[in-house]
Amino acid sequence: MLSEMSLKDFLEKLSSNEPAPGGGSAAALAGSIGASLGCMVANLTIGKKKYEDVEEEMKDLKVKFEEYRDKFLQLMEEDAQAFNEVIEALKLPKSTEEEKRARNEKIQEKTKKATLLPLQIAKDALEVMELSGITIEKGYKMAKSDAAISLVMAKAAVDGGLYNVKINLPSIKDEDFLRDINSQIEKIEGEANTLELRLLSKVYI
Amino acid sequence: MLSEMSLKDFLEKLSSNEPAPGGGSAAALAGSIGASLGCMVANLTIGKKKYEDVEEEMKDLKVKFEEYRDKFLQLMEEDAQAFNEVIEALKLPKSTEEEKRARNEKIQEKTKKATLLPLQIAKDALEVMELSGITIEKGYKMAKSDAAISLVMAKAAVDGGLYNVKINLPSIKDEDFLRDINSQIEKIEGEANTLELRLLSKVYI
Repeated sequence: MLSEMSLKDFLEKLSSNEPAPGGGSAAALAGSIGASLGCMVANLTIGKKKYEDVEEEMKDLKVKFEEYRDKFLQLMEEDAQAFNEVIEALKLPKSTEEEKRARNEKIQEKTKKATLLPLQIAKDALEVMELSGITIEKGYKMAKSDAAISLVMAKAAVDGGLYNVKINLPSIKDEDFLRDINSQIEKIEGEANTLELRLLSKVYI
Repeated sequence: MLSEMSLKDFLEKLSSNEPAPGGGSAAALAGSIGASLGCMVANLTIGKKKYEDVEEEMKDLKVKFEEYRDKFLQLMEEDAQAFNEVIEALKLPKSTEEEKRARNEKIQEKTKKATLLPLQIAKDALEVMELSGITIEKGYKMAKSDAAISLVMAKAAVDGGLYNVKINLPSIKDEDFLRDINSQIEKIEGEANTLELRLLSKVYI
């Protein structure tokens, strides 16, 4: 399990010439960092008299951030796994026509999976951006830099996830799948950029 | 040592209501992730016949990325430590005029230290952005998404570092120090934004 590794060991593994964990796992980790920081701001807000009005909202946020933090760690594993499965498919035999056909099918199937995973990372990170926005607007003022950094990390996870989606697309032959993914990329990119501009403009530091 | 903790445990600690590790450490970790991914791209480029022309450059880059990866882990610890020292200073006694003066001096000294640390994170992350740019332009094409994500993570580290610099400034009374830091912030922000635009426009995926 990558999430059981020490930071130091994980980063050394990430640095190595093993293709996984790579950018997709890094994006998921950034999402987890963003969710964790948002959770910290919610935690620092809860119990403060001046923030009684948002106490319940912050308690809900805390739970949601914890769920995303843990989900991203799961996605970090799954992205590395999905990439390794593509590599395995590429190693399948291709001596006969039958083998070639089976290999191509497996490569297509595994590449789609390796595309959908970072897309999920980007989608979840977009939701973390929205939650971070609430901590920027309503959370403990002394931790507003942490709330802003939570947003920055979640945005990096969106962008990182989408780069990893895009790198897979040239290998995919299913036109309907490509059309669907491209339209999702465009939507997520647009929303993430708008959200970033709108929310960071509310960070008065 | 934070870097000896498992990813899971570190993220739980980051989520807690302990003020450190917080945004500064998160920014440093993003810098370390960025440097690690850049290192991975250099590693994947080294030894490939088609990339013989850049072999030596990639070997140099690999070493530099490793140095930054490890330096960021160090800065992650130091940022958490610096923040804890501010908290300690705030707890000093303030019953007499003499105690008040000594406490204020200590708070100023420790707040300056807690400002210079994330500034260092931002400066180093700006340099990692430049190095990531080289992997985007000259590294192994199949890993171009990883090179782009390396840049995105380094940019998040710059932005995150600067938010943590800014949050400290209202507590600092030394006008010369503030002028110097504000001019450095402006310079780093400008360079990071220009670099991001210029380099990401070269990521053809």
